[in-house]
Amino acid sequence: MFVKDPAMTDDIQLTKATANKGKVLLVGAGPGDPEFLTRKAMRVIQTADVVVFDRLVSPEIIELVPQATRCIDVGKAPGNHKLPQEDINTLLVELAGFGLTVARLKGGEPMIFGRGSEEASALHKAGVSFEYIPGITSAQGAAAATGVPLTHRGCAFGVRYVTGHRAGNAALDLDWASLANEDTTLVIYMGAMNIAKIASQLIRHGMASSLPVMAVSAATTPRQRHVFSDLSRISTSAQGFEADAPVLFVIGHVVSLGAEAALGAAATEKVMAYA
Amino acid sequence: MFVKDPAMTDDIQLTKATANKGKVLLVGAGPGDPEFLTRKAMRVIQTADVVVFDRLVSPEIIELVPQATRCIDVGKAPGNHKLPQEDINTLLVELAGFGLTVARLKGGEPMIFGRGSEEASALHKAGVSFEYIPGITSAQGAAAATGVPLTHRGCAFGVRYVTGHRAGNAALDLDWASLANEDTTLVIYMGAMNIAKIASQLIRHGMASSLPVMAVSAATTPRQRHVFSDLSRISTSAQGFEADAPVLFVIGHVVSLGAEAALGAAATEKVMAYA
Ligand SMILES: C[S@@+](CC[C@H](N)C(=O)[O-])C[C@H]1O[C@@H](n2cnc3c(N)ncnc32)[C@H](O)[C@@H]1O
Ligand SMILES: C[S@@+](CC[C@H](N)C(=O)[O-])C[C@H]1O[C@@H](n2cnc3c(N)ncnc32)[C@H](O)[C@@H]1O
Repeated sequence: MFVKDPAMTDDIQLTKATANKGKVLLVGAGPGDPEFLTRKAMRVIQTADVVVFDRLVSPEIIELVPQATRCIDVGKAPGNHKLPQEDINTLLVELAGFGLTVARLKGGEPMIFGRGSEEASALHKAGVSFEYIPGITSAQGAAAATGVPLTHRGCAFGVRYVTGHRAGNAALDLDWASLANEDTTLVIYMGAMNIAKIASQLIRHGMASSLPVMAVSAATTPRQRHVFSDLSRISTSAQGFEADAPVLFVIGHVVSLGAEAALGAAATEKVMAYA
Repeated sequence: MFVKDPAMTDDIQLTKATANKGKVLLVGAGPGDPEFLTRKAMRVIQTADVVVFDRLVSPEIIELVPQATRCIDVGKAPGNHKLPQEDINTLLVELAGFGLTVARLKGGEPMIFGRGSEEASALHKAGVSFEYIPGITSAQGAAAATGVPLTHRGCAFGVRYVTGHRAGNAALDLDWASLANEDTTLVIYMGAMNIAKIASQLIRHGMASSLPVMAVSAATTPRQRHVFSDLSRISTSAQGFEADAPVLFVIGHVVSLGAEAALGAAATEKVMAYA
């Protein structure tokens, strides 16, 4: 079902003479549970001519794509390297050029650490029409699946999504003083590699080492694991997770609400499966 | 279809003898467009015994509730005051006590400025089972509908959702120094009343007065209006909006991406309707 070499779009056997103008839909696939797709995303998946997806889209969602629809996996190109962003942009422009309706499926929300706007910009420059379809971002999936809210009166006046990784593994030069604010729930995306450094910097800049932290991997899928811990221990607490599963860290007082109310005090410090 | 006095649940004509145990589903209804409901939220709306909703749930979504389903509007109690949170909690516990499956519909995402976790906590204390169903938060709706991304490589390394309003109109004592960070997209919820103050504080704490700002009201509904402006002018730019429509402010360099790429430079400073 998948194209082995995503660059080989010419085997799609279409001519540019197609009368219809192509279009790209930049679709958020949500955190993993197919029930958390939006109605619009679901319809697009079922009616698109071609689906272009990457590693974070759950297999449960890929199963919803009709058998006859061409699927292109740009997260696992030959040699296990993902296709560079520029090549993905070119692929989308080309597919739309064939007159196809392209569903560009992304994990979570395309506008949050999803590079959706880079693709939109390339499409815009190439004169290809496109549309955004939002998706439940993984922070929300993690919240729904664990009972940990992202804001809560008197406890978190806001929430902040931060990347824990820099392009090309450049140094993580986050604004630590601004991040170390216990009134704001902090959600770290792409932080698995750097969590020890992140936790120690946050402590150094004033957060309590006992501040509750939750790590969640593969949120809302049957593979979900999560653990309740605190800033001083989080980097060791999360070590039991699958190495290649996506992991999110939620840091702040709200974490104790999930740990107590929804899951019972006994849940603390144990790695749990998604019920 | 609506119960005039939400406290009058006894006219629901049910006995506590019902064998089934009741349950409350804390459902995110998304920003307004019914196409942006999740599949699960849609199913719950169509199968619940009773729907409890408030002001931010769009009329387009309320129309999806089957005619025969009882709907309780807790956002417009008699005298145009909304039902106090404590009374809503009690109502939910009572309805579940009747053995009903209750869809508690909230605008956007229940875990982001939605008081979902306060209701969850009351349900937990009363021994009522509940479940969270996430929703597209209005920041994502605004992004999808305008082309303004929430993060973008080299331009915004994260996004932060902040409330621009304090309970009981208490002084807005935000951590301005931490908020005035041009590397992070700032989204202000509930900020319509305080936007002049917020903008001037952000400028005082170091943000450029020319930093792009977008205001969006009733995002993703047929009533959507949005305007592109900057920090120094935003409080006047947004004055043309409906007084009682929900308004969101997006502050940061990402705003110029939406203004240019998706909508054309001519769009700047004009109030636009949602196409
Ligand atoms: C490139 S970012 C994409 C984020 C995505 N656009 C979203 O809105 O969720 C990848 C990161 O998202 C997070 N992530 C995505 N899906 C996840 C899931 N199901 N469970 C936990 N974290 C997830 C992880 O932090 C992962 O490193
Ligand atoms: C009490 S908060 C609820 C937020 C909601 N839980 C969410 O996730 O979007 C209300 C605020 O949400 C924002 N809001 C909700 N729906 C909106 C919409 N359709 N367009 C613009 N802003 C909206 C406004 O800032 C409004 O003041």
